[in-house]
Amino acid sequence: MFVLGGDGFCGWPTSLHLSNLGHEVTIIDNLSRRNIDNELEAESLTPIQPMGTRLNVWEEISGSKIDFLNIDLADEYDQFLDAINEQQPDVIVHFAEQRSAPYSMKSPKHKRYTVNNNMNATHNVLCAIADSGLDIHLVHLGTMGVYGYGTAGMKIPEGYLDIEVKTETGERVEQQILYPTNPGSIYHMTKTQDQLLFHYYNKNDSLRITDLHQGIVWGTNTKETKMDERLINRFDYDGDYGTVLNRFLMQAAVGYPITVHGTGGQTRAFIHIQDTVRCIQLAIENAPGRDERVMIFNQMTETHRVNDLAKLVSELTGGEIAYVSNPRKEAAENDLHVKNDLFLSKGLNPTTLSTGLLQEVTEIAEKYAHRADHTKIPAKSTWTKEQQPGIPEGEEEDLVN
Amino acid sequence: MFVLGGDGFCGWPTSLHLSNLGHEVTIIDNLSRRNIDNELEAESLTPIQPMGTRLNVWEEISGSKIDFLNIDLADEYDQFLDAINEQQPDVIVHFAEQRSAPYSMKSPKHKRYTVNNNMNATHNVLCAIADSGLDIHLVHLGTMGVYGYGTAGMKIPEGYLDIEVKTETGERVEQQILYPTNPGSIYHMTKTQDQLLFHYYNKNDSLRITDLHQGIVWGTNTKETKMDERLINRFDYDGDYGTVLNRFLMQAAVGYPITVHGTGGQTRAFIHIQDTVRCIQLAIENAPGRDERVMIFNQMTETHRVNDLAKLVSELTGGEIAYVSNPRKEAAENDLHVKNDLFLSKGLNPTTLSTGLLQEVTEIAEKYAHRADHTKIPAKSTWTKEQQPGIPEGEEEDLVN
Repeated sequence: MFVLGGDGFCGWPTSLHLSNLGHEVTIIDNLSRRNIDNELEAESLTPIQPMGTRLNVWEEISGSKIDFLNIDLADEYDQFLDAINEQQPDVIVHFAEQRSAPYSMKSPKHKRYTVNNNMNATHNVLCAIADSGLDIHLVHLGTMGVYGYGTAGMKIPEGYLDIEVKTETGERVEQQILYPTNPGSIYHMTKTQDQLLFHYYNKNDSLRITDLHQGIVWGTNTKETKMDERLINRFDYDGDYGTVLNRFLMQAAVGYPITVHGTGGQTRAFIHIQDTVRCIQLAIENAPGRDERVMIFNQMTETHRVNDLAKLVSELTGGEIAYVSNPRKEAAENDLHVKNDLFLSKGLNPTTLSTGLLQEVTEIAEKYAHRADHTKIPAKSTWTKEQQPGIPEGEEEDLVN
Repeated sequence: MFVLGGDGFCGWPTSLHLSNLGHEVTIIDNLSRRNIDNELEAESLTPIQPMGTRLNVWEEISGSKIDFLNIDLADEYDQFLDAINEQQPDVIVHFAEQRSAPYSMKSPKHKRYTVNNNMNATHNVLCAIADSGLDIHLVHLGTMGVYGYGTAGMKIPEGYLDIEVKTETGERVEQQILYPTNPGSIYHMTKTQDQLLFHYYNKNDSLRITDLHQGIVWGTNTKETKMDERLINRFDYDGDYGTVLNRFLMQAAVGYPITVHGTGGQTRAFIHIQDTVRCIQLAIENAPGRDERVMIFNQMTETHRVNDLAKLVSELTGGEIAYVSNPRKEAAENDLHVKNDLFLSKGLNPTTLSTGLLQEVTEIAEKYAHRADHTKIPAKSTWTKEQQPGIPEGEEEDLVN
C-alpha cells in the first residue's frame, strides 16, 4: 500500500504501524514539511532524522522494509501513475496536503500555495486511480473543521445529515445530504473542496473512498516510533504547525506562558496520535464496497474547551496561563457535540486525555526543551488585518531577536 | 471594470454590452479559448477576428475604447494584482474558466487542466481582491449544473435551500443552506468548488460576490456583436464546445442529422445570449452589501426537454433526427423546475425560444456552413469507458478523414 505524505506528523507513525502489521508500505512524499521548516526557521522540537536514516533504522529494528519515492503529487502526475501501475497497491492512504490553518493564512502566497497544492494533489490521486483502472481503496485524512463549530442543536453526524425539505405541495420529504460545510481557514476550505472531488469520482468512476474527519491530534509517539529515538515523531510547537494541546504542554515545559487565544471558549475535538494510526488501520480493514458512497468517519475521541485544557496543563505543571488576542477570525465560544459511533463500532478503544499521558508528553517537551526557539512560539498569522498576533505580555521583545 | 475571460462566447458580448452602457472596460484573457481551437482543430463556425481587430473595430464604431491585458489568471497572480492596484476597478466580471463539460472529460490531462486552471484562476481572483483591500464587487459566471438535475419535488431555489433538521430532543429547526451539489462532470465539479471559495472569502474578508447559475446558452449575436461582422460572436458546433440547441440548428443547416444523445429525455435550463449580457448588467446594478452573504441568481429563462428541442428544429428545418449513444454518464430522463424570480424582479424581460429567433440562428449557421468540418460534429468525449461516442449511423467514416 502507498502512504502519501508518509514523512509527516500523522503519515510517519501510520507508515510504521501499517508496516508493523505486515503490510508492504511505500511512502510517497516530496519532503515539503521539512522544506517548510526551512522556510519558517522552525524545527520539530524532537530531532527528526533524514528519511534514509528513518527507513534504515526501521528495517534494522523490525526486519520490514519500507520503500520511499520522492514525488510531488500536485505536479508530477506521470511519475505517480507509473508508481501505481508498477506496484498496483490495493490501498492508498492520503496525507499529502498542507495541513496547517495558520500557515494557509500567513499571506497571499501561502493561501495560493495551499489551494494549488491541496487541490491538485488530491485531484491527481483520484484521477490516477481512475486512470489506472485498478480497484484501489483510497483512505484520505480530512478534518472535523469541514463541519464548522456550530450546529442547530443536533450532534454532528458522520459526514451525512438527515434533513427534511418541503415540496411544492407542502409535503415534507426526507433526504440525506453531505453535511453543509463551514470551514474556518483556507486550509479547512480545501478539505471541503476535497469532499466534492471524492463525491464526483465515487459517482462517476465508482472509486472506493473513505474520508476521515479528524480532530486535533495530540501526543507524539506511538508504539512503533518509541522503538528507537531515531524513529521519533515530529513535535511541532511553533505558532503555525503546533496543535493546541501539544503547544500548552511544551509551553509549560519550557517555562513559557500557556497561551490561550481569546477567552479559550472554543470547543474542539481531539484524538491521540496512537488512535490516529489505529483508526487508519480500521478504515483500511472496513473498506466500502464498489457501489457504496464515500464512507465518512469522525476520527476523534473526545471534545474539550480550550480553556479547560489550559487549566489542566497549568494544574499539572504549575505553568501560568496568558490570555492573548485571537489571531483567528472565529466564534469566541462554541459548543460541540459529535458522533463517533462508527470507529467505536469497528473496535476503537480510545486513548483519552489522562494525567499519565499528558505527563509523558511533557517529558518529551522537557527532554528537548533546549532545542526550542521561543520566538517561534506565538501564533502570528492573522486571519485578516483586524486580528492581532497572539503574543503574551513580556514576550514581545523576543520577536526582534 | 474588468471582464476576465472577455474573449470567450459569453465574455466578448458582455464586454461590448458593458462598454456600450458607458463603463470603462478592460478585458483580461490569456486567449486560451483560441488555443483550445488549435488543439481540437475545431474553430468557431463564425469567423472570429484577432483581439486587436475586434477592439479597433469596436472603437471605430462606438467611439469607446476597451483595454486588453493578456494575463493567465491561474498562473500570473502578480500581474493581475498590479492591474487591480493600477486601475482600481469597482466591478470584476469573471468568466475566465474552462467551460466545456466534454472537454473536461476527454482525458486525465484535460481533467487535470480543468481543475488546475479553474481552481487557481478563481482563487487568485478572490485572493487578489482581498489582498488589494479595495471594495470590488465580483460577478462570477457559474452554472445551473451545480444543482444536478433532480430534486425531491421542490423547485430548485436560487442558491439556498430551506431545510429542517431534528435536534437531539426531537424538535424541528429551520435552516437555510447552500443547495447540496450534484455536478455531472469535472467542469461542473469545479463550479461547485468555486462556491466554497466564494463562501469563505465572503465570510472571512467580507468580499461582495454575486454567483450566476446560468443555464445552457443559445443564440450567437447580441445587439452589439451585430453592429459589424468583425465583431461577430463565437458559434461553437463541435462535440466539445457546442451547446445543444446551437448544435441542433447548425446540424440542420448543414444537412447533418440532428443528433440526440440517448432518448433526449434530459430536461435542461436555457437562456439566450442577449439575456446573458443583460443579466450581467442587472447583477452589477444590484450588488450585495458589504455584510451580505454571496448573492446567487439562477440565470435562465426557460426549461426544455432535449428531445422536444430536436423535434422543434426538425419541424422548422426538415432535418432528420438521429438517436445515438449518450457519451455522458447521466440520468436518461429528468424533470426540472427552477426558480428565477430574482432576475425577473430586477427587470429582466426574457427572450424566449421562438421560431423567428431560431430562424435567425439557422441563417447564421447556413451563412457559414462552408466553414464546418463535419468530423468535428459528433460528441466523442466519453465520461467513462462504459459510454460510447454519439455518432449517427452513416457518419462513422468521416472520422477517419
